[in-house]
Amino acid sequence: MARIYNFSAGPAVLPEEVLEEARTQLPDYHGSGMSIMECSHRGRDFAAVHAEAIANTRKLLKLSDDYAVLFLQGGASLQFAMVPMNLLTDGAVADYTNSGSWAAKAIKEARKIGQVNVAADCGKEIPTRVPRMDELQLSANAAYLHVTSNETISGARWNSYPQVDVPLVADMSSDILSRPLDVEPFGLIYAGAQKNLGPAGMALVVIRKDLAEKAPETLPTMLQYRTHIENDSLYNTPPCWTIYIYMLVTRWIMKQGQEKLYRQNVEKAAGLYERIDRSAFYRGTALPEFRSDMNVTFRLADEELEALFVKEALAEGLSGLKGHRSVGGIRASIYNAFPPEGVEKLVDFMDDFEARHG
Amino acid sequence: MARIYNFSAGPAVLPEEVLEEARTQLPDYHGSGMSIMECSHRGRDFAAVHAEAIANTRKLLKLSDDYAVLFLQGGASLQFAMVPMNLLTDGAVADYTNSGSWAAKAIKEARKIGQVNVAADCGKEIPTRVPRMDELQLSANAAYLHVTSNETISGARWNSYPQVDVPLVADMSSDILSRPLDVEPFGLIYAGAQKNLGPAGMALVVIRKDLAEKAPETLPTMLQYRTHIENDSLYNTPPCWTIYIYMLVTRWIMKQGQEKLYRQNVEKAAGLYERIDRSAFYRGTALPEFRSDMNVTFRLADEELEALFVKEALAEGLSGLKGHRSVGGIRASIYNAFPPEGVEKLVDFMDDFEARHG
Repeated sequence: MARIYNFSAGPAVLPEEVLEEARTQLPDYHGSGMSIMECSHRGRDFAAVHAEAIANTRKLLKLSDDYAVLFLQGGASLQFAMVPMNLLTDGAVADYTNSGSWAAKAIKEARKIGQVNVAADCGKEIPTRVPRMDELQLSANAAYLHVTSNETISGARWNSYPQVDVPLVADMSSDILSRPLDVEPFGLIYAGAQKNLGPAGMALVVIRKDLAEKAPETLPTMLQYRTHIENDSLYNTPPCWTIYIYMLVTRWIMKQGQEKLYRQNVEKAAGLYERIDRSAFYRGTALPEFRSDMNVTFRLADEELEALFVKEALAEGLSGLKGHRSVGGIRASIYNAFPPEGVEKLVDFMDDFEARHG
Repeated sequence: MARIYNFSAGPAVLPEEVLEEARTQLPDYHGSGMSIMECSHRGRDFAAVHAEAIANTRKLLKLSDDYAVLFLQGGASLQFAMVPMNLLTDGAVADYTNSGSWAAKAIKEARKIGQVNVAADCGKEIPTRVPRMDELQLSANAAYLHVTSNETISGARWNSYPQVDVPLVADMSSDILSRPLDVEPFGLIYAGAQKNLGPAGMALVVIRKDLAEKAPETLPTMLQYRTHIENDSLYNTPPCWTIYIYMLVTRWIMKQGQEKLYRQNVEKAAGLYERIDRSAFYRGTALPEFRSDMNVTFRLADEELEALFVKEALAEGLSGLKGHRSVGGIRASIYNAFPPEGVEKLVDFMDDFEARHG
């Protein structure tokens, strides 16, 4: 089994132990005579998977009973609509921060539903960053304040969150469970699974249960958080395989230790940024104080050189380094499951590439 | 590898060859150095999977260029809302047929969106059935007529479809690709994958492209069919693993031959119904002329005997025979991938059970 170093932004690298476990259990899940994909979502085997997935999430995020854990389909993209459909009720306004491509998508969808105040906008700035606290122009009575914790495309992130009187709502797709988090100020957190959590095909939603009560009963049943809370996230057939792999990933995180993974993430990113800053050959995309530990973005002198960088890196077993098609450049996504050795190898390659092309 | 006979209604049995292929390719997909779950949804390896999944669907359903093939998240349950949100536009009415639990769910969601005419209602009749053609009270100018091709819970199905001037829209979750189908009268067909198509986590949607143009632009982007048509079903990160297994399942169907599978399905169901009708010990739930080939439902004298039947069957390696929790009884779901030997074994068990308890 020759594993490549996979720097993809998502779908992204999964822990080898998780893949090995999934492979071992594939044709016959723990002696049930069927794979987990074939087990009824209301039967004993999947029920245990589902319960452990929820319990692990509660433990890792230190959730009180005020919060529900949901596994919904449609990724973060559907959450962009579900959040305002449920929380931005008649006459209210919602504050949104624009920090880049993903925040902009959330704003676009919220505007279709209700009144949006963009409290701060640095979405198109280069170098990239997220808003500073003193820039926020908040509404008097917002239903919530939306933040994008980490912009996967630009590589900028919030280091800490605004202290406001309204619930925070966050798209944490690209950094959930990668660093310490106090959930208490958040009314709702959502995250597409395919970066730090598992394969594509679901969004993790953590919601303060009282907030779900605001939703109009006229909303489609599937689009009400209330429906999924009342049915323990089993209103309809859930994405069983994705939940299963997510359960294995959360189990793996607990085995590694959250603190250890966090320190490792900081070190991996620091190593890469140190290499970027060592010469003018590479230029970091994000303002240093807003740099993401998950998505390390940088540019070279021109697009031709960037294309050569991506091509030569791939030949060295370093895959997925091409920046998002909307912005170009180089992006190294180094989520929890990305091994430190891969970062070291990338740093060595960057040295070598500069020596040959600098 | 000890496989059980899995009569679950969904998630359901998958072809052994598909599981074996998935297992073989799990840690290292065709030498890419990563599993298919870790491949970028915009990279070469997944693009090939996605393209083959669409091409196989086009071939198996004999689709003209007028139709688009979409893989959407949220199962059939989200389609219950998306269909009227997109097709039941201002002032129009939609005709729905009520044939049982699933049709009723589709009707409930459509009523939240617009005006619904229930053209025929036999949803609560026992023995179960679907409407007869001469019962349909159609609207003068309906946007569409909705049918549920096969009621998974009650075990009743349409043998042929109404000939009307408006597009048919069908929930074909439990019998798609199990029997011949002329797609031409249909404007939209949707099917949760977890019965005849693959694992849970997506709905196959086949839509006549011109119909998608009716949707108001004010709908959330993710809930417009237009969005997914314009982006070749890759607007956001798709459920890659589910699409991959679906691709393998469609490949398997083509290898088996649709005609052969269809004949096999007819024979499997006929064998079971013949056994049911042989004595008064078992009583079929559906009216004979509406009996489903996919979900064979029957009752025993009382619930206690039914519980014993399910328990003893499981001990014999016959799993998942308990009827849906909403109706009770026995249900044997025998989709494409369910092997004929399993039906023979169930018939033998039914003989034996009757001999001991009749």
